[in-house]
Amino acid sequence: MTPYAVLEERARAVLPQAVFDYYAGGAGDHETLSANTRAWSAVRLRPHILRDVSRVDTATTVLGTRVAAPVLVAPTAFHRLAHPTGELATAEGTAAAGSLLVLSTRASTRIESVAAVAGPWWFQVYVLRDRALTRELVQRASAAGARALVLTGDTPYVGRKRRDRSSLAIPDEDFRVNLERLTDVSLAEQAPDVTFDDIGWLKEHSGLPVLVKGVLRADDAVRCVEAGAAGVVVSNHGGRQLDGAVASAEALPEVVQALAGRGEVLVDGGVRSGQDVMRALALGARAVLVGRPILWGLATEGATGVQRVLAELQEDTAHVMALAGASSVAEVTADLLAAPR
Amino acid sequence: MTPYAVLEERARAVLPQAVFDYYAGGAGDHETLSANTRAWSAVRLRPHILRDVSRVDTATTVLGTRVAAPVLVAPTAFHRLAHPTGELATAEGTAAAGSLLVLSTRASTRIESVAAVAGPWWFQVYVLRDRALTRELVQRASAAGARALVLTGDTPYVGRKRRDRSSLAIPDEDFRVNLERLTDVSLAEQAPDVTFDDIGWLKEHSGLPVLVKGVLRADDAVRCVEAGAAGVVVSNHGGRQLDGAVASAEALPEVVQALAGRGEVLVDGGVRSGQDVMRALALGARAVLVGRPILWGLATEGATGVQRVLAELQEDTAHVMALAGASSVAEVTADLLAAPR
Amino acid sequence: MTPYAVLEERARAVLPQAVFDYYAGGAGDHETLSANTRAWSAVRLRPHILRDVSRVDTATTVLGTRVAAPVLVAPTAFHRLAHPTGELATAEGTAAAGSLLVLSTRASTRIESVAAVAGPWWFQVYVLRDRALTRELVQRASAAGARALVLTGDTPYVGRKRRDRSSLAIPDEDFRVNLERLTDVSLAEQAPDVTFDDIGWLKEHSGLPVLVKGVLRADDAVRCVEAGAAGVVVSNHGGRQLDGAVASAEALPEVVQALAGRGEVLVDGGVRSGQDVMRALALGARAVLVGRPILWGLATEGATGVQRVLAELQEDTAHVMALAGASSVAEVTADLLAAPR
Amino acid sequence: MTPYAVLEERARAVLPQAVFDYYAGGAGDHETLSANTRAWSAVRLRPHILRDVSRVDTATTVLGTRVAAPVLVAPTAFHRLAHPTGELATAEGTAAAGSLLVLSTRASTRIESVAAVAGPWWFQVYVLRDRALTRELVQRASAAGARALVLTGDTPYVGRKRRDRSSLAIPDEDFRVNLERLTDVSLAEQAPDVTFDDIGWLKEHSGLPVLVKGVLRADDAVRCVEAGAAGVVVSNHGGRQLDGAVASAEALPEVVQALAGRGEVLVDGGVRSGQDVMRALALGARAVLVGRPILWGLATEGATGVQRVLAELQEDTAHVMALAGASSVAEVTADLLAAPR
Repeated sequence: MTPYAVLEERARAVLPQAVFDYYAGGAGDHETLSANTRAWSAVRLRPHILRDVSRVDTATTVLGTRVAAPVLVAPTAFHRLAHPTGELATAEGTAAAGSLLVLSTRASTRIESVAAVAGPWWFQVYVLRDRALTRELVQRASAAGARALVLTGDTPYVGRKRRDRSSLAIPDEDFRVNLERLTDVSLAEQAPDVTFDDIGWLKEHSGLPVLVKGVLRADDAVRCVEAGAAGVVVSNHGGRQLDGAVASAEALPEVVQALAGRGEVLVDGGVRSGQDVMRALALGARAVLVGRPILWGLATEGATGVQRVLAELQEDTAHVMALAGASSVAEVTADLLAAPR
Repeated sequence: MTPYAVLEERARAVLPQAVFDYYAGGAGDHETLSANTRAWSAVRLRPHILRDVSRVDTATTVLGTRVAAPVLVAPTAFHRLAHPTGELATAEGTAAAGSLLVLSTRASTRIESVAAVAGPWWFQVYVLRDRALTRELVQRASAAGARALVLTGDTPYVGRKRRDRSSLAIPDEDFRVNLERLTDVSLAEQAPDVTFDDIGWLKEHSGLPVLVKGVLRADDAVRCVEAGAAGVVVSNHGGRQLDGAVASAEALPEVVQALAGRGEVLVDGGVRSGQDVMRALALGARAVLVGRPILWGLATEGATGVQRVLAELQEDTAHVMALAGASSVAEVTADLLAAPR
Repeated sequence: MTPYAVLEERARAVLPQAVFDYYAGGAGDHETLSANTRAWSAVRLRPHILRDVSRVDTATTVLGTRVAAPVLVAPTAFHRLAHPTGELATAEGTAAAGSLLVLSTRASTRIESVAAVAGPWWFQVYVLRDRALTRELVQRASAAGARALVLTGDTPYVGRKRRDRSSLAIPDEDFRVNLERLTDVSLAEQAPDVTFDDIGWLKEHSGLPVLVKGVLRADDAVRCVEAGAAGVVVSNHGGRQLDGAVASAEALPEVVQALAGRGEVLVDGGVRSGQDVMRALALGARAVLVGRPILWGLATEGATGVQRVLAELQEDTAHVMALAGASSVAEVTADLLAAPR
Repeated sequence: MTPYAVLEERARAVLPQAVFDYYAGGAGDHETLSANTRAWSAVRLRPHILRDVSRVDTATTVLGTRVAAPVLVAPTAFHRLAHPTGELATAEGTAAAGSLLVLSTRASTRIESVAAVAGPWWFQVYVLRDRALTRELVQRASAAGARALVLTGDTPYVGRKRRDRSSLAIPDEDFRVNLERLTDVSLAEQAPDVTFDDIGWLKEHSGLPVLVKGVLRADDAVRCVEAGAAGVVVSNHGGRQLDGAVASAEALPEVVQALAGRGEVLVDGGVRSGQDVMRALALGARAVLVGRPILWGLATEGATGVQRVLAELQEDTAHVMALAGASSVAEVTADLLAAPR
């Protein structure tokens, strides 16, 4: 079993079935969920030998923020379902690992409380049907110290997950923790009419750079940066939105090529090892985000588990970089990639 | 399990084994039967994000008839084997869902009775060895209100199905319900000498537009419209005729390209989800036809089951269109397709 | 289960394990054995519709001899292991089916006895280490009425089959039935120094046309006809010689193209259905040879079983030709083939 | 089961689990370990027929040394774990088979003792953190009669193997047998700063030609020979270093093409049959090295087992060369290869 599979099994053992299914599941027939991991494996590597790799440095920056490794914490919902200390533990573990947290709109802990214990962090935005409430949220995030917003663009409606059939009930207090003003719960749903124009609207009201998450095509990536985005996250929402969508590893190259440096390109979806991190960088990503592994670390060991997952990924990334002859992330380029078979 | 698989299992539970096998089976080694579904899955999607999808309209027209969604009811035989109310239930459920029924020559209910409860419907034609009988059937269909004929072109002989080994006996009353005049049963078999010339013959005697079903190649599609057809249905008869034939999703693009708008192109075979509907439209089909899912709905819940299958497919189509950034069927184009891998 | 699989299981039930393994097995890891059948399945068909197929004629000629279908009986060894009546039964069943028998050098029945009951037949030649003995054999075959020789070119040594481990002992009387003069048994082994020059030598001593069996490449095919061969059999010896060799369906097109009509091209290996026969013809073969199916028919029902296998293949070929819109073998062309995926 | 699989099972039965796992395992998820064998199988062969193959000669030379077959013994560690007589048995068996031994830096027997019983042999070098110790080792090897050095270039750090989890403890006496002077055990680890410059350093101190093992790309191969290497071994260390690296059969062609004869190209990884040997030669390798099969032979039968493995591979290579129409290794060329599918 891979280290990831071991961790996942441990999380499955400690979590209520409905919670595990909620996190682990994907949309539809899981075509895209399984394609994500397969697509990374299909990227074959051509390592260099006889390089001096006595020192390997995985550090990099994302939107100017230094991180210990090109591995960030993806926004995921309701961490108190996974562990009583919820996002506080995630923030502490992330900070201890020298990584960066992307805090979800669907966090089950108050933004300001998380900010108090976090290292560098960004705020993930769902534009809600109640836009005033949305504006308030991003202003609170900005005031609390978020360094950027991550606008999720692929969720006009929530994708249908089969494994949710067990019908997980999100506790009302978790759902409302950042939405005290909310009267009509339907107004807290994602707005289905979010467009590229909202990028500017979010920048204006938050004073923060905006990344757009959920991009799977070159043209949309270009529209994002032309609308003012600082970059994009190539993502299919971990296989949880449109089942049948291309794997993120498959979409990454065309986005990198289209932006040609006009914005930073991150990627998420199925990254489970140092090899996958190296593959993403070789395909042109600046960094990856990991979601489910963090939740499994959180579920099994709280803040320590989150830190451990990130530390092990960083260490594994350093190890495989050394085996490929790369001493720094700048040396991880497309030169390491074999032609697809 | 997919919703389709759940439905199929429920139908298997309520149907006699021989009836289930008759409907579920395919020709030969099931190469084409299984290729049909695999081929849709292989069509990977590149969704657009940040589009206003607050309203998604799945409505379209087929040969000028408005339908609630680009999902029609494929012609299938002997519905009274699946449910005591047979084609009457199918017609009612189809009408309630705002869809269109293609009534089979092998219906087990009188054409006129079905017409009395149906919404818009077409009549599927097997040219029988007794051509006078065939003419009479299409004239009855025309008189009863059929809006078009669908000539099945791929069945000069019935393909061999292994699972039929249980040797389903079609009740004589079901077989003869529309063939009172029939004396020699062999004359009710499909004629093996049907050619493109019969398209004009059918138009002439029925006064109706004719679609040809069973087309798998560009040249045949062109000959159909040159012989007067209003369009074609790309189909391998659900994998029930020539085993080893290409999947319908594989044949669709060359037919669309060859006709270049000179006729409408529908498709059937293995369509099981909203994604598959969207894939067919993106590949150039105007609409899809579904066969087995309708039979499973009919078997399990009669008219309500038929309506439910169609309503769920429509709703699923709307959902995935929204996730792909398309508000109307006109916006579902080849732009959404990834290059084949 | 396919009809072939059913037949194979019945043969497995009646044959001693060592005999079944001897016939069913292949060389090495069975890579080529399994590739043979997979390669036919990979040839996808594009059927024509709306053709008059009221009459379908499978008849053709091979080297001028008329056969009821383009399906001949491949040379296989020691039929008395499969059935007490051995090659006599095979010859009778083949004649009854209107097919042509290729009698093996390793027949377990006297050539003259087989000839007495056979329809048209050819004689398969292994050039033996004792060339005088070889010459004698082909002269006896010629005198007995063989219409051609089939020189097996791919067996300088016998390929190693794992399933032979049960070490089938060929009865000495079966081995020697056509080799009365033999003193040193090693001289009855295949000669490892057979070359293209032996084609002329065989023609000269037999007065018969010579086909070369075992060709898998264009250049060798050309050398065969330049050395006087009347044609070739594209074959990897049913996966029994070089494991890892290309499937015969994969090698067929380059041979057809290279010969460009300068000789007849037959093919064997993994042909199990009418579809496979049609695929072979569409790829340019004049006819196919079947080996193991004949042995299973022989084992289970003697001459009747052989006839039944051939009749069913002929009938299945006619059926799928009709479903593809072809009324004669001349109409089965590359036009029916989809591009490889 | 293949002969290799049978042998492996016998070795599994006699070895302690931890030792078997240590030898059999690979890095990470075993992606590269399994890709190695799959990649050889994917190389399909186009045999020639009707060649005189009464005599087939598998002999060749490597760096001027004649070997009975193009199959050498790869360097592997600590043979005393596999058999009490350790490298002495390996050396004797290799010599008896007419092959060449590559003795590992991690041998568990004194270099001089092995040399006393070996036929031709090379010495595999890990440049250790203690370079003086390294120099001493290669000078001892040279003095003892090694004909070349094989510098392993792909192991700046040891790859992580999951199956090692059982944590095999290498006996200290085995680890130190050639390192009497060693005080700080960490200095016996592989140096992570080995570069192309060390090729010249090794040549200078040993007076021997140097091959570089672990090359998977054309550019690195060129740098090796430009730095003075006599050739390279295309290798991913049997899937034990960078998991996700290309299979050695996939990397081989680009290295052969890039060197264009400027150095000898050997290959290892997943070679398990005569076919694989022939495939490697057809792809341009001068010879292959085998590792695990030798260990299984050693474990099961000591020197006799090693000899048997090599003799059977030689014999199998001769057999398949005959079936492909090649009488000598010079006749095994790319002409025998089918285009990849």
